[in-house]
Amino acid sequence: MTWKISNSELSQQALLNMESLFALGNGYLGVRGNFEEGYGPSMSTIRGTYLNAFHDVIEIPYGEKLFAFPDTQQKLVNNIDAQTVLVYLDDEPEPFRLDHGTISAHERHLHMDKGYAERKVQWTSPSGKEIRLTFRRLVSFTRRELFAIQLELTPVNFNGRVRIVSTVNGNVKNYTNPNDPRVGAGHAERMTVIDAGVRGQDGYVMDETMASKLRAACVTRHRLDGSEANVRLEAGSGEVLFTASFPLSGPVTLTKYNMYTDSLRHGTDLVEEGIRLHERLQDLSFEDLTAEQTRYLNDYWKSADVTIRNDDRLQEGIRFNLFQLLQSAGRDKYSNISAKGLSGEGYEGHYFWDTEIYMFPVFLMTQPDIARQLLLYRYAALDQARARAREMGHKQGALYPWRTISGTECSSFFPSGTAQYHISADIAYSYIQYYLAEQDQDFLLSYGAEVLIETARLWADIGHYYNGAFHIDEVTGPDEYTCCVNNNYYTNVMAKHNLKWAAKSCAILKDYDAEGYKALCGRLGVTDAEIAAWAKAADAMLLPYDETLGINPQDDTFLRKAVWDFENTPEDKYPLLLHYHPLTIYRYQVCKQADTVLAHFLLEDEQDFETIRRSYDYYEGITTHDSSLSSCIFSIMASKIGNMDKAYEYFIETARLDLDNTHGNTKDGLHMANMGGTWMSIVYGFAGMRIKESGLSLSPAMPKDWEQYAFRLNFRGRLIGVSIEKSGVAIELVEGETLEIKLYDELVELASGQPVKRPLKG
Amino acid sequence: MTWKISNSELSQQALLNMESLFALGNGYLGVRGNFEEGYGPSMSTIRGTYLNAFHDVIEIPYGEKLFAFPDTQQKLVNNIDAQTVLVYLDDEPEPFRLDHGTISAHERHLHMDKGYAERKVQWTSPSGKEIRLTFRRLVSFTRRELFAIQLELTPVNFNGRVRIVSTVNGNVKNYTNPNDPRVGAGHAERMTVIDAGVRGQDGYVMDETMASKLRAACVTRHRLDGSEANVRLEAGSGEVLFTASFPLSGPVTLTKYNMYTDSLRHGTDLVEEGIRLHERLQDLSFEDLTAEQTRYLNDYWKSADVTIRNDDRLQEGIRFNLFQLLQSAGRDKYSNISAKGLSGEGYEGHYFWDTEIYMFPVFLMTQPDIARQLLLYRYAALDQARARAREMGHKQGALYPWRTISGTECSSFFPSGTAQYHISADIAYSYIQYYLAEQDQDFLLSYGAEVLIETARLWADIGHYYNGAFHIDEVTGPDEYTCCVNNNYYTNVMAKHNLKWAAKSCAILKDYDAEGYKALCGRLGVTDAEIAAWAKAADAMLLPYDETLGINPQDDTFLRKAVWDFENTPEDKYPLLLHYHPLTIYRYQVCKQADTVLAHFLLEDEQDFETIRRSYDYYEGITTHDSSLSSCIFSIMASKIGNMDKAYEYFIETARLDLDNTHGNTKDGLHMANMGGTWMSIVYGFAGMRIKESGLSLSPAMPKDWEQYAFRLNFRGRLIGVSIEKSGVAIELVEGETLEIKLYDELVELASGQPVKRPLKG
Repeated sequence: MTWKISNSELSQQALLNMESLFALGNGYLGVRGNFEEGYGPSMSTIRGTYLNAFHDVIEIPYGEKLFAFPDTQQKLVNNIDAQTVLVYLDDEPEPFRLDHGTISAHERHLHMDKGYAERKVQWTSPSGKEIRLTFRRLVSFTRRELFAIQLELTPVNFNGRVRIVSTVNGNVKNYTNPNDPRVGAGHAERMTVIDAGVRGQDGYVMDETMASKLRAACVTRHRLDGSEANVRLEAGSGEVLFTASFPLSGPVTLTKYNMYTDSLRHGTDLVEEGIRLHERLQDLSFEDLTAEQTRYLNDYWKSADVTIRNDDRLQEGIRFNLFQLLQSAGRDKYSNISAKGLSGEGYEGHYFWDTEIYMFPVFLMTQPDIARQLLLYRYAALDQARARAREMGHKQGALYPWRTISGTECSSFFPSGTAQYHISADIAYSYIQYYLAEQDQDFLLSYGAEVLIETARLWADIGHYYNGAFHIDEVTGPDEYTCCVNNNYYTNVMAKHNLKWAAKSCAILKDYDAEGYKALCGRLGVTDAEIAAWAKAADAMLLPYDETLGINPQDDTFLRKAVWDFENTPEDKYPLLLHYHPLTIYRYQVCKQADTVLAHFLLEDEQDFETIRRSYDYYEGITTHDSSLSSCIFSIMASKIGNMDKAYEYFIETARLDLDNTHGNTKDGLHMANMGGTWMSIVYGFAGMRIKESGLSLSPAMPKDWEQYAFRLNFRGRLIGVSIEKSGVAIELVEGETLEIKLYDELVELASGQPVKRPLKG
Repeated sequence: MTWKISNSELSQQALLNMESLFALGNGYLGVRGNFEEGYGPSMSTIRGTYLNAFHDVIEIPYGEKLFAFPDTQQKLVNNIDAQTVLVYLDDEPEPFRLDHGTISAHERHLHMDKGYAERKVQWTSPSGKEIRLTFRRLVSFTRRELFAIQLELTPVNFNGRVRIVSTVNGNVKNYTNPNDPRVGAGHAERMTVIDAGVRGQDGYVMDETMASKLRAACVTRHRLDGSEANVRLEAGSGEVLFTASFPLSGPVTLTKYNMYTDSLRHGTDLVEEGIRLHERLQDLSFEDLTAEQTRYLNDYWKSADVTIRNDDRLQEGIRFNLFQLLQSAGRDKYSNISAKGLSGEGYEGHYFWDTEIYMFPVFLMTQPDIARQLLLYRYAALDQARARAREMGHKQGALYPWRTISGTECSSFFPSGTAQYHISADIAYSYIQYYLAEQDQDFLLSYGAEVLIETARLWADIGHYYNGAFHIDEVTGPDEYTCCVNNNYYTNVMAKHNLKWAAKSCAILKDYDAEGYKALCGRLGVTDAEIAAWAKAADAMLLPYDETLGINPQDDTFLRKAVWDFENTPEDKYPLLLHYHPLTIYRYQVCKQADTVLAHFLLEDEQDFETIRRSYDYYEGITTHDSSLSSCIFSIMASKIGNMDKAYEYFIETARLDLDNTHGNTKDGLHMANMGGTWMSIVYGFAGMRIKESGLSLSPAMPKDWEQYAFRLNFRGRLIGVSIEKSGVAIELVEGETLEIKLYDELVELASGQPVKRPLKG
């Protein structure tokens, strides 16, 4: 049940949104849910195929360019288009398309258990010929280069010749919208066709990006079942065309296998590599491919599924989010999870802190191998982060870019870009979480410690002592409505954690592998004095506290500003960033998103419960949630302070944000971080899960309207099942060794076949 | 003596600098000191002719464009080039030029008493023909459209035919340097030729700007004396050419009269208007024109001259600065004084606060009519400032643009652009100073009060009460190395003054002209309650004070930041803005220029002397003077605190900044504000002049190495002469009615023929 997203709308707005919602991907390759035949000349579409991290380099323009403003940025490129399949009936001049003729049935489905999308149409042509078409498509989870389309064509009242034209087109452009800063502006044409041709039964197109000179190829093979056909395969101008002409009297099936290769991953012989991949595939039927998908997904859902009894809309929303996360996460050192996954071009395909704070936790607790890959991507970018720190005037340390694909800073507006130094601590935090969840000392020695050390060095360099306290000045926290401030609570407390754990990692590794640790210190020039300095700075870190309100101020002067005049701000002036100059917004107490409240979630032991509760109440009153990164955090923290109604309200906003297009821009791609946030709202929020040095803990509660919810967790090699009902919580060890965890304030032992049951608290 | 700037250098760098130093202008028309014949193909030049305020509109590019970022900016356009005069000897293929042949003599002079520039060359052509050439040129102070060139050509060993080709060329470009944010980037070609032709004895060229569609014309007439000549006048491609061919046996003189007209000021018949102006001129000889110039300048120097006995270099520097100020100041409602005057294209020809704080005072005390014109320019832009305030989210008031030509905001980097709200208070300050110096109630009623009221309303809107004090958040003060702060001392104290005087103006006008005042209040909707609110905000204005240091902190958190590591900053890393990211600079206590110290100069009665002295000492230690607006203020304030050695040191840096190219970028235009600063360093600094409600006061001191210095002041219709010697100060009333002023702490009466003499104090 509810393994399926279904829709049959055909309005312009709906179709654009569905392109994102029905996007398919596997972390490497992503294809938007466009119609194979297009929509007709009067309608717009964002027709897109993306290879994760496959980018061009474009110049950033400035009115006034100051020192160390990045000259260029990367941009995810819309890649070779293999989606097109056109069906011509007899001698009708126009192919099948929904903007002419008559539609008697139309439905589309995304099968989240089987890993494919499907579209069924019954259609009568302008001259009265009726046919049924079923398009199925998948992007394989197990064969990363493969995007397959199946068309089943059945006559209804029609008996005649049919011509199918299937193309692979290298003449592609990116989408632009100069009026929305969240979408790429300009630079539509980034790819030129290098070659298009035929090799035996395969057609291929090879493109090259204009500036970065990356190459991609699509090698396509077709298979037609159910009829004898005249088949022609030929190269056109920047494209290849497959034409099959046949009499249609019963069902005919066309399968189109597209193999994508690129010069980042596949060396130089991209076409040959594509052909090799086809040979390996051996024209496996679409059904065989969906069987592979189903096996892969069974495995995924076994650890990742979250169930909510008797609420299909939410159940649908949660599964959809988890499915899209799986589709979006890069699995190699070149790629990560872009803000829109592989479902659109919003934010130019850049990777942000969204990965570490909003999506990494999902993978960490369900698919630790993918989590580990995400960490390795950041490790591969460490040298660039070191170089950026030097460029930004730091004598030591690594400063990660605010937005990037290939590792260099791509943000052109530094107050809510480069100034968000916290991203370096966020990345450190994810390494620490990984260590806490997996206790993988070898990984810590080989990768983690180096990242922790280099980021700690950044904080040691940027900070300074003032009246005995360690201050960090002139940075921007998560809240982009307040920029370039001193002692942002979030940044300081995350930097403290970073510094503390750099020192702690050294101690752990010294114990674990004295030789390896010595080599590491030698390579990085780490001394005992430096380690002591990190610990000292962590201890002395200023964590601003306001005695009057009993809360942590967002920064040194935040609480002295005037509160935004919410009462006189009409609804249509939100999001504020599209209606007010940044200076105007900065001038007031108004938050785009969780900032101090997020810090209180990530590092809850740094403040007492009452401070956290009062902070939540205070900041809730001045937060617009204009960012999609906000509601989930407020949901989690509402759960923490025991306000389950609020927690549920915020949760609802996250769970179906894209399915219901509540932010109005789903067409530009899915809000990936929010999708992670949905899972977090349940697991960290309602169920109160935490990972700390003391291990795994749970503190489950139950939203008023729910009967039961359940999820699973991967933790230190175990698979743990958690089910919460009104009557109580049941925890079982599904796989792995006996383990002690904390449930509310009690230590409980989880052993195979011995579920632990306790009544709900609170 | 020392009425002449002389130079004979011919290096590339020197020639580029001389183009700025020998620039001629009259506030409307400016011509750089280029060579009529050019320099030769291997050398670069910034060949420029400018009409004040004549601009094109160009798009501002952004990587991320946020709300209310200006879409376009104005750019001063390099105008039709009438400088070229080429001399061909016999059948030599190349004309006279200094990069070939032999130079036996070369000198150039700028005559600051006679208002023209002169260049004398003795030169032997490659084939051995020797001639003497004297080029003289002037831009008339009394005929604003006229730029005249005279060439005197004399044979030395040569007897043969000469051909002179004189052109007016409409194919012009702006200069660009993409690597220096202080010079315009891109957008070189902004003008297209509309027409070029001949009308009787006049050749003309008309150009139009690409986007703003402003038109300019140059109508040129030639006069040749000393020989019969074959003369041809013809139109070429975008230019007109005057060719005169004649035998050279004795001196021949060519005079080239260029009349510039433009569609901002001269309607639509630009060529006809140019011809009319020629008719009025009646081919006045160059000598007649210099006589006119001399008369005009006699008048100017009578009130403006500053003399320093026995220091020719300084004497030269000061006169040069005052001469260039006179050449640069716009005299109509379209124009003001650009940061580089009319001598270059740096800062795109924009007007900044430089006018009000650094240049206006010179005119106020020497040429009050020009001062008044500068105020009227701002009055004409008041509606645009109101509109900008609305766009920036203010419910009331006027926010003047940080940089502009035609009145809209042209700054693309808001932290050191739009955020410098203080410009609105600076403009208000200049209106207040004008009132204090001239006591012109009619002007106050017609113009000043409205500006004061609208700027006061801005402060009332941006500020808010916190703990009973009036706070102003998220603005940038004059120091561009610290941006977007709360309660910048300078901004707050200037806003306080602004608010106080808005209220005071109302009281003054109510007394002076009750009817007029009532009409004004009616028109602007001013109520007694609003006036009371201004006074209350002024009284409650937070002026930050640090008890420990006993100084005014630059802003709320400035003193808590780390001090810049000056010791480890090598000399070649200055100016810092060209070597460090703004965030890095913002993070530290380091000032580009006087900020709090400037506030203590402009509003010295707001703090006690000891606070001012300690503040001076503190900020001096952390100021780089990377801005040319800094040294003069530190000089003035060093004088105030009695440190005459320091005052002199800073003064020296200002007096010859451009003549000695100490900032290395004189080629891009002169540093006009610094030129005003030179005069201020003497008059406000050494002589301690102030204008307050109590009237004019002086508190003269004498730099150690000087014997005597003297200057004059226009004040309330009087002309006052001030002479300071070691033995004492002498003040005389040169013109006007008896007047009481303050000398040191004494009230003295100035009456005609009764100089006041007192010994020097301190």
